[in-house]
Amino acid sequence: MTILELLDYAGVAVFAATGALSASRKQLDVIGFLFLAAATGIGGGTFRDLVLGAGPVFWVAKPTYLIVCVAVGLVVFFTAHLFESRYRLLLWFDALGMAAYSVMGAAKGLAATGSPAVAITTGVMTASVGGILRDVLAGEPTILLRPEIYVTAALTGASVFTVAGLAGVPLAAASAAGFVAAFLVRGGALRFGWRIPVYRPRPGRHPDDVM
Amino acid sequence: MTILELLDYAGVAVFAATGALSASRKQLDVIGFLFLAAATGIGGGTFRDLVLGAGPVFWVAKPTYLIVCVAVGLVVFFTAHLFESRYRLLLWFDALGMAAYSVMGAAKGLAATGSPAVAITTGVMTASVGGILRDVLAGEPTILLRPEIYVTAALTGASVFTVAGLAGVPLAAASAAGFVAAFLVRGGALRFGWRIPVYRPRPGRHPDDVM
Amino acid sequence: MTILELLDYAGVAVFAATGALSASRKQLDVIGFLFLAAATGIGGGTFRDLVLGAGPVFWVAKPTYLIVCVAVGLVVFFTAHLFESRYRLLLWFDALGMAAYSVMGAAKGLAATGSPAVAITTGVMTASVGGILRDVLAGEPTILLRPEIYVTAALTGASVFTVAGLAGVPLAAASAAGFVAAFLVRGGALRFGWRIPVYRPRPGRHPDDVM
Repeated sequence: MTILELLDYAGVAVFAATGALSASRKQLDVIGFLFLAAATGIGGGTFRDLVLGAGPVFWVAKPTYLIVCVAVGLVVFFTAHLFESRYRLLLWFDALGMAAYSVMGAAKGLAATGSPAVAITTGVMTASVGGILRDVLAGEPTILLRPEIYVTAALTGASVFTVAGLAGVPLAAASAAGFVAAFLVRGGALRFGWRIPVYRPRPGRHPDDVM
Repeated sequence: MTILELLDYAGVAVFAATGALSASRKQLDVIGFLFLAAATGIGGGTFRDLVLGAGPVFWVAKPTYLIVCVAVGLVVFFTAHLFESRYRLLLWFDALGMAAYSVMGAAKGLAATGSPAVAITTGVMTASVGGILRDVLAGEPTILLRPEIYVTAALTGASVFTVAGLAGVPLAAASAAGFVAAFLVRGGALRFGWRIPVYRPRPGRHPDDVM
Repeated sequence: MTILELLDYAGVAVFAATGALSASRKQLDVIGFLFLAAATGIGGGTFRDLVLGAGPVFWVAKPTYLIVCVAVGLVVFFTAHLFESRYRLLLWFDALGMAAYSVMGAAKGLAATGSPAVAITTGVMTASVGGILRDVLAGEPTILLRPEIYVTAALTGASVFTVAGLAGVPLAAASAAGFVAAFLVRGGALRFGWRIPVYRPRPGRHPDDVM
């Protein structure tokens, strides 16, 4: 198993865990756990494969990924109540999945097109789609709108991988560097509340007050 | 017309009806009815065809499906006010569409890959996507989060079809069995409030209270 | 550059601007601006290319579109605070993007299938997907649910283009006519509050009151 395959399975498994934790927070039944685990686990990669137009998506070609989602969903169903804060656990697993997928998405985009702009875009979008899908399905505010750094971390991972890859760094090293970079940025945001300073004029008003 | 084609048209038509009923609940204009009817009617099948990577999606290949959605949208526009509870009507039509699509999705997935895991997944996801899309577009809480059995019913239908199909049962009988099984489970949930017993520790707190 | 290519870049650029304005209303950081600009700018065209099944989507084939989104996102980041009402600006840019994409979506659908029903559907859906995606990502009520005419304007543009194209009108003239028609209808709705008279029985109750 190459490092990219390992990252892919790891990304699917930890995103699946966040989907199942979200199901736990919403008190769904076991099938709801499996559904959210699968949708979150394979959502990002499905988006990546669709836009790259490479025929059937990865889990249709290799159903083992589905088994991983089901297994993770079951484990979370029986253990989620043991954790003090399922939401914080969800955030940390999500950080791992985001880091893995930012590299995987960039790697597949780079291999398919050779374009760094496409590679960084598929990296960022692949890393974000799973979590956004989970939040929309579970009716939570999407992670995009929270103040801590998220998309920036995915952008960091995808960029580090892409630049390293184009510079001739071996694939395994470029992948590891991208993964670590993305996880450090997101982890710092979660642990220390890092934020990008924003020029912040004023919040938007409600549409009805504007019209 | 084979039983699978019949299920496909039936699935599109009743999902289109639920989209139009949702438009009625939101007091949209007639074009809003047609839009939600089409999006809900073809949403699940579009997802199914995309992930299976079989070229243009079904309604691009055969536009009759679009005519069905428009016709259903118009009928609902002129008759929806006659019903005491449009929401209950929506739920029952949705149950029919979910049952039809759980079989259709599994059938296409099984034919394309031969994998039961893929077939059951495309069955469940195809059956759920139309309704989820409708609820997100209309700004309603998604049907996933309601306490009655939903995904479980789709899982039942897809599994019955897949197991029967692999066991050599003729396609028409396997399809009918899957459809009836899914509809009975969902119908029982709607009529008698069936729920899967859940081990239910505590609800999730709001993200802001956790961080 | 043909008029269709021009419309395509214009559609991407103005939709990207609406995504960035939405990020401004939500006080996101600069990377959040770029993310919402890209997702909104390329969302509609991505959907169009996926359902038509034509291999990799347009921005994978030609990454210049991504550069446009990034440039627009940066410009909006530094200028959005200058405007009295970012939401009204967003609505007018959205109207331009919707008009451009109603024609582009119909043109690609017509070229791929020859079917007017498919062309009108891909026109309407392509024109709506970008804005819906933006609203869902930003947690705003989708533009679909607001009382002013929206989908109808997209339908007008797609229909004018399709009918003119099938009647043998040259492509440039048919495109211009469709664009102007869609923009006039939506502009009239924004400026004068045009609405389609609806037969409006009663609003939907909350699901919990119905069950």
